Amino acid sequence: MADPWKECMDHCLEVTKEAGKMIREALQKDISIMQKSSPVDLVTETDQKVEQLIISSIKEKFPTHSFIGEESVAAGATSNLTDNPTWIIDPIDGTTNFVHRFPFVSMSIGFAVKKEIEFGIVYSCQEGKMYTARKGKGSFCNGEPIKVSGQEDITKSLVLTEMGFKKDPEHFKTMMGNIETILTIPVHGIRSPGSAAVNMCLVACGAADAYYHMGIHCWDMAGGAAIIREAGGVIMDISGGPFDLMSRRLIIASSRTIAERISQVPITPPLW
Amino acid sequence: MADPWKECMDHCLEVTKEAGKMIREALQKDISIMQKSSPVDLVTETDQKVEQLIISSIKEKFPTHSFIGEESVAAGATSNLTDNPTWIIDPIDGTTNFVHRFPFVSMSIGFAVKKEIEFGIVYSCQEGKMYTARKGKGSFCNGEPIKVSGQEDITKSLVLTEMGFKKDPEHFKTMMGNIETILTIPVHGIRSPGSAAVNMCLVACGAADAYYHMGIHCWDMAGGAAIIREAGGVIMDISGGPFDLMSRRLIIASSRTIAERISQVPITPPLW
Repeated sequence: MADPWKECMDHCLEVTKEAGKMIREALQKDISIMQKSSPVDLVTETDQKVEQLIISSIKEKFPTHSFIGEESVAAGATSNLTDNPTWIIDPIDGTTNFVHRFPFVSMSIGFAVKKEIEFGIVYSCQEGKMYTARKGKGSFCNGEPIKVSGQEDITKSLVLTEMGFKKDPEHFKTMMGNIETILTIPVHGIRSPGSAAVNMCLVACGAADAYYHMGIHCWDMAGGAAIIREAGGVIMDISGGPFDLMSRRLIIASSRTIAERISQVPITPPLW
Repeated sequence: MADPWKECMDHCLEVTKEAGKMIREALQKDISIMQKSSPVDLVTETDQKVEQLIISSIKEKFPTHSFIGEESVAAGATSNLTDNPTWIIDPIDGTTNFVHRFPFVSMSIGFAVKKEIEFGIVYSCQEGKMYTARKGKGSFCNGEPIKVSGQEDITKSLVLTEMGFKKDPEHFKTMMGNIETILTIPVHGIRSPGSAAVNMCLVACGAADAYYHMGIHCWDMAGGAAIIREAGGVIMDISGGPFDLMSRRLIIASSRTIAERISQVPITPPLW
């Protein structure tokens, strides 16, 4: 049987390339303008332009499909995942990195049908890495198959998480406590690249062994969820239960052993 | 007057390219071998081979020069900086990244005469970025001039530091306390790429605004020190005093304002 969503994935790849060009052009702007004048305005402007490009292009081709986009939600759209074919879009994942031109800036698109992710694409714009995954067909980076490291020993693992400052002191205390707990297991090290979608791809290609995060959104995870699963990785809730795209939290890992080990750490869900 | 050290810098660039090829080849090895069998042996083997290649090539051309190399020191050589022309070499900076193939793995060479750094070269092998700087002649990445962001407001800055697990609980407490203090200034974010030399280059090219670290060695800093200075950045001791290559600690920043602000944080020197 022909793949019913092949046309969607092909179109997704095309629009990602086009939108990626727009992000790369924005990154060429003078860094002093980006950092000094109004970095927030600049990133918002690019974020919105890229999301509009993606959504209008897809709507034209697939008018009955639904969308959950970071910028649309910020502008008041709902963030409900229904059974309808749904495109879940983060036009720029890693906005702080974008403003500073730190190497990891990505675009993430996941496509879900009946709440199941069918395919995902993450484009790490500055690295020039296009990660793609179709359910049951494996994960790829620039067309080459990728897989997780397969590491099962957490003491030999490299773990990713993020340390963004949250104004709520309780959240902050929890986040720092969790990092301390993970470090003292001990692990090889902790890295914080600054883009959730890139973090998921780094685990998918074996450059890190685990990633945990609380407080992120479905658009940060949808594309990467397909990529990590198809690369042989494990994705679960931070409690150790099943992953829920709308729960705003996740653990991914190269093996169930490592994911479960991290789920045993007293990772208190933060307030958000 | 002709540059008295031009021949040395030209030779350094050649040997860096050759040694970089050796590191890239080692990174091609099957990741399961790297992570499962004996990652420590593999990295040590490559580290030693690369350092031997660099030192023997330079010794042949400049037989009177001195060397401080990470692997030579590990094997019992002294780490004294004299007035003699001295090559300060880290064959692989970011060994944990190397084992995991995390994107930042670099080779760093600094060249000092009368204890002053004359030039520095850092090659970020996986990114394919060759950073070079000659005293008084500017900093370059792949031949293109680079400069720091010029950011003066720490609340708009992206800060780099490292979170390696140290067995000494006092050191660990200090390190985590410092990260908390920096985050709550607040800053835009903290990133930990995992290679000191790459961190220095990221600040030099404006992708981050500051980097502080305690417990690192002269071979981690010598190449990057030339690159940050020539890119218009500031380098100082964590106390706010003058930078000392042999002190095992540093702050670098895009501006004196930011460097001094970080030096005011109660960064207690760790035990090592």
